Amino acid sequence: MPQPRTAPALPKSYNDISWKEIKTEHYAEDPSIIILTLWRPKNHNAFTGIMMLELEEAYAMFDIDDRVKCIVFTATGKIFCAGADLDVGFVGGQEPVNEHRDGGGRVTLAIHNCRKPTIGALNGSAVGVGITMTLPMNIRIAPKAAKIGFVFARRGLVMEACSSFFLPRLIGHSRAMAAVTTGSTYPASDPIWSGLFAYTVDRPEDVFPKAIEVANEVVKNTSVVSTYLMKELMFRDTGSAEGQHLLDSRILYELFTSADNKEGVQSFLQKRPAEFTGTMDNTHVAAYPWWNPIDVVRRPKVEGAKARL
Amino acid sequence: MPQPRTAPALPKSYNDISWKEIKTEHYAEDPSIIILTLWRPKNHNAFTGIMMLELEEAYAMFDIDDRVKCIVFTATGKIFCAGADLDVGFVGGQEPVNEHRDGGGRVTLAIHNCRKPTIGALNGSAVGVGITMTLPMNIRIAPKAAKIGFVFARRGLVMEACSSFFLPRLIGHSRAMAAVTTGSTYPASDPIWSGLFAYTVDRPEDVFPKAIEVANEVVKNTSVVSTYLMKELMFRDTGSAEGQHLLDSRILYELFTSADNKEGVQSFLQKRPAEFTGTMDNTHVAAYPWWNPIDVVRRPKVEGAKARL
Amino acid sequence: MPQPRTAPALPKSYNDISWKEIKTEHYAEDPSIIILTLWRPKNHNAFTGIMMLELEEAYAMFDIDDRVKCIVFTATGKIFCAGADLDVGFVGGQEPVNEHRDGGGRVTLAIHNCRKPTIGALNGSAVGVGITMTLPMNIRIAPKAAKIGFVFARRGLVMEACSSFFLPRLIGHSRAMAAVTTGSTYPASDPIWSGLFAYTVDRPEDVFPKAIEVANEVVKNTSVVSTYLMKELMFRDTGSAEGQHLLDSRILYELFTSADNKEGVQSFLQKRPAEFTGTMDNTHVAAYPWWNPIDVVRRPKVEGAKARL
Repeated sequence: MPQPRTAPALPKSYNDISWKEIKTEHYAEDPSIIILTLWRPKNHNAFTGIMMLELEEAYAMFDIDDRVKCIVFTATGKIFCAGADLDVGFVGGQEPVNEHRDGGGRVTLAIHNCRKPTIGALNGSAVGVGITMTLPMNIRIAPKAAKIGFVFARRGLVMEACSSFFLPRLIGHSRAMAAVTTGSTYPASDPIWSGLFAYTVDRPEDVFPKAIEVANEVVKNTSVVSTYLMKELMFRDTGSAEGQHLLDSRILYELFTSADNKEGVQSFLQKRPAEFTGTMDNTHVAAYPWWNPIDVVRRPKVEGAKARL
Repeated sequence: MPQPRTAPALPKSYNDISWKEIKTEHYAEDPSIIILTLWRPKNHNAFTGIMMLELEEAYAMFDIDDRVKCIVFTATGKIFCAGADLDVGFVGGQEPVNEHRDGGGRVTLAIHNCRKPTIGALNGSAVGVGITMTLPMNIRIAPKAAKIGFVFARRGLVMEACSSFFLPRLIGHSRAMAAVTTGSTYPASDPIWSGLFAYTVDRPEDVFPKAIEVANEVVKNTSVVSTYLMKELMFRDTGSAEGQHLLDSRILYELFTSADNKEGVQSFLQKRPAEFTGTMDNTHVAAYPWWNPIDVVRRPKVEGAKARL
Repeated sequence: MPQPRTAPALPKSYNDISWKEIKTEHYAEDPSIIILTLWRPKNHNAFTGIMMLELEEAYAMFDIDDRVKCIVFTATGKIFCAGADLDVGFVGGQEPVNEHRDGGGRVTLAIHNCRKPTIGALNGSAVGVGITMTLPMNIRIAPKAAKIGFVFARRGLVMEACSSFFLPRLIGHSRAMAAVTTGSTYPASDPIWSGLFAYTVDRPEDVFPKAIEVANEVVKNTSVVSTYLMKELMFRDTGSAEGQHLLDSRILYELFTSADNKEGVQSFLQKRPAEFTGTMDNTHVAAYPWWNPIDVVRRPKVEGAKARL
C-alpha cells in the first residue's frame, strides 16, 4: 500500500488544522465522522497541486487514526469540482516520464488505500478529476441535475486518476465507453451513470443530510475491519471463485475469534447497537495482505549517483 | 473442479432421498427439472453444517446425472434463508487456519461447478449466506419486497462464499461496494440490486411459477453442453479479446460436428422443438478445461506423518 | 494487434469501392464520418464468409486512414443481422482445430483494434453474430422493439466472436448469464440489456439520425488519440489501481506536450470548437502498447516443412 514513508502526526482535533484548499472537521454529533470539504470558493474547487498534497496528507491521517470511522467528502459552493485548474494547466517535460505521478491518481490512491470508508457528498457538478477522484469512494450521492463528465477526449488527454481501472468496474464497460467516447457531460440522473450514485436527490441541499444519514448508519452498525477487508477482497481478488474461497475461508476463520465478530453476534442476539473496537492493528488476519503491493512512490533521486558509478 | 473424490451413487428418483434439511423432487410435468427446497421450516431455513453437506451431495449428483437438465432452487415458508444459524454460531480455532473451508463457499462452488443450470426461486428474504449462495446460479427470481442483505460488516465478518468474486461481477463494483459498506438490507426491487434478479415479482407466490416457466424454457430449448461451456467461458476467461477468440474458435469448431449443433440447426430450420442429447461426456471439446483447476479440498491428514519424517 | 500483414491501399473515396455484401460511403455533410452498411437485402443481412472478409478489409483501412474519424455501422432493411447464414451452415473438420478462426471473432477483433470509434446504428433485430459483432463498438443504438438474442444454446453452440469476453464486461455477469442461459430474444428495451444500448428509440427510423447526432458530437469535439487510448486503457488494464496509476501517469505526462492537448485546452479557454490533428502515428506515447500482443493470425502453412525436418 502506498503509505507515506513517515507516519503523519495526528492532530488533537481535525477542526484545528490550517489547510489552504480543503477543510476538515469532526461532525459535531459524532466526532468519529470527519467532514472533508474542498475549499476553493472562488475557483469552483478546481484541482491544484496544493489541494492534492492536502488531500493526500489528510487521508494518510484518517488511515491510521483509530478515532476516525468514516469520512464524508464534499465541497463548498454550488460546484463539487470543475476539474484540473486550467489556469495552472498541464505541464509536461519537467521530469523523466517514468517519474511523473499524476496528481489525481495520487489522491485516488490515498482514498482507495485508506482503511476507513468514504461517502462522497457531491454538492454539484463534477468533471474531469472532479469525478475521477470520487471513484474509489464507497458510496456517492449527487443532485439529479449535477453535470458529470469524463471530458478527457475533449482536451486531447486520457482518463486519469486510475479511472480506467475504476469506471468500467463501477458501471460496466458499455456505459464507461460511451461516456468517455463523447466526453460530454450528462446529469447525475442520466441512465449512462446508472449504478455510479447510490442516491441522486432532487435538490443540492439534500445531498449533505443524506450523506450524514448514510455515514451514521455506517459508523453505528459496522466494523471498519469488515468494511476495509471487503473493499480489498473485491478490488484485489484472486480471479477465480476457487481462489477467492481459499482466501475468504482463511480470513473468516480468524475473524470468528475476533472482538468485532463476538460483539457483532452478541449485539444482534441482544437486539442492541454494536460497539465495535476492532482495527486492522488489533485484529489478527494472517492472510492480509494477500497481494503484491506496487510501490507507486517515485524512486528518490540519489545525488551523486552517477559519480559513484 | 472440486468434485467429490468418489462419484456419488445416483438415486432411482430424487423424490426418494431422505434428506434432513433439504428436499429434492422431480418436477412432475418434466422430471428433467429438479426442485430443490431448503427445509428448516422452524428456523427460517438458517444455514447449518448438515444443510451444507446435503447441498454439496445433491449438487454432486446433479452434476453427473444425465437425467437432470435444470435445478429450481427454492425454500420452504416465507423466508428463503435467514443466513448462518447463529444458535450454532461461528466457531474458530478448531483446526489449522489454512485447512478451514467456509461452508457457504463449499455450497457456492458445488453450484458453480455443476454442469446443469440453476434457477434461484427466492420465496422471500435472504441475508448473509442466504443470498451469497445464490450468486453462482444462472438466474435469480425474488418477490419485490424480499429483504436482501450482505450484513457481514454488522457481524464483524467479511463477505463469504466467494461472494467477493461473484457480487462485483454480477452487479458492478459500485452497487456491490455500497451494499457491503452499510451492511443493510434492501428490498429486492431496490436499484442497489439492479441486475441481480432477472425478475422481481409482486407476490411471493408468483416466484415459483415464474421459475418453472423459465426452467421449462431452458430444458425445452437449450443444450446443457452449451449452457455449461458458456458459464465457464465467461467466468474463466483469458483476460483479452484475442485470447478469448483463440479459445472460442477452438470450441466452436469442434461443436460444429456435435450432435447438439446438428439437432439445434435442423430443429430450427424444421421449426420444431429441439431434442438435445449432448453431455460433456459424449461431446468432444479438446480445449476443455482451459484453466488450471484449483483443488479446494483439504489435504487429507496423514496419521503418523511426523513420525515418518 | 491483429493487423493485416500488408497495409491495405487506401481508396480515393469510400463511396467508390465495389463491395459485394457491405456498402461504405462518406457522410455527405462530414466526410470524416463513414457510413458502413451491411448489404444483403434479401437475406436479412445474414453473416457470410464474404461479409466477414469485407468487414475485415474495411476496418483495416479505417484503422490507418487519417481522414476517417468515426464509423457509423448500420444495415439495410428492417433487420440489422439475422446471425450466421444457416443456408451456408457451420462446417467443421476441414482444418486442424487450432488453425480455425471464428469469422465473427475476426470481425469483432477488426472493430476492437481499429483506432477510430464506431457507433452501432442497429436498424432492427440482431441475433447471434448479429449482436456479438456489435459488442466492441463504442456506442450502440437500437429501436426499443428490436429483438436481441444470444441464441447459441438453442443451436448447440457457444457464444462466439469473443462475446464471452465482452458481454459480461459490458452489462455484468448477472444479465449476461441470464441471457445466454435461456438463449431467448428480448426487446432492446428489456432490462436484461440495461447498459448495452446508449439509446433505445421508439421508431426504427429514429436510429440513424441519432447515430449521426452522436457521431457529429464525437468528430467535432474529441481527439481520436484520446478515444483510442482510453479504449485500450479500459480493456487492457493492469489489474490494479496502482498499476493503472503508473500507466496512466506515463501516458498523460507525454500527452501534456501533444498537439491535441494544446488545442483541446486552448479551444476550451477560447470557447471555440477544437480542431484536433493528432493520430497515433504523429503523437509520442512511449508506453504504448503496454500489453503483450497476441497474434491471432493463423500460422502460415509451410510446404515441405516435414521434408526439411
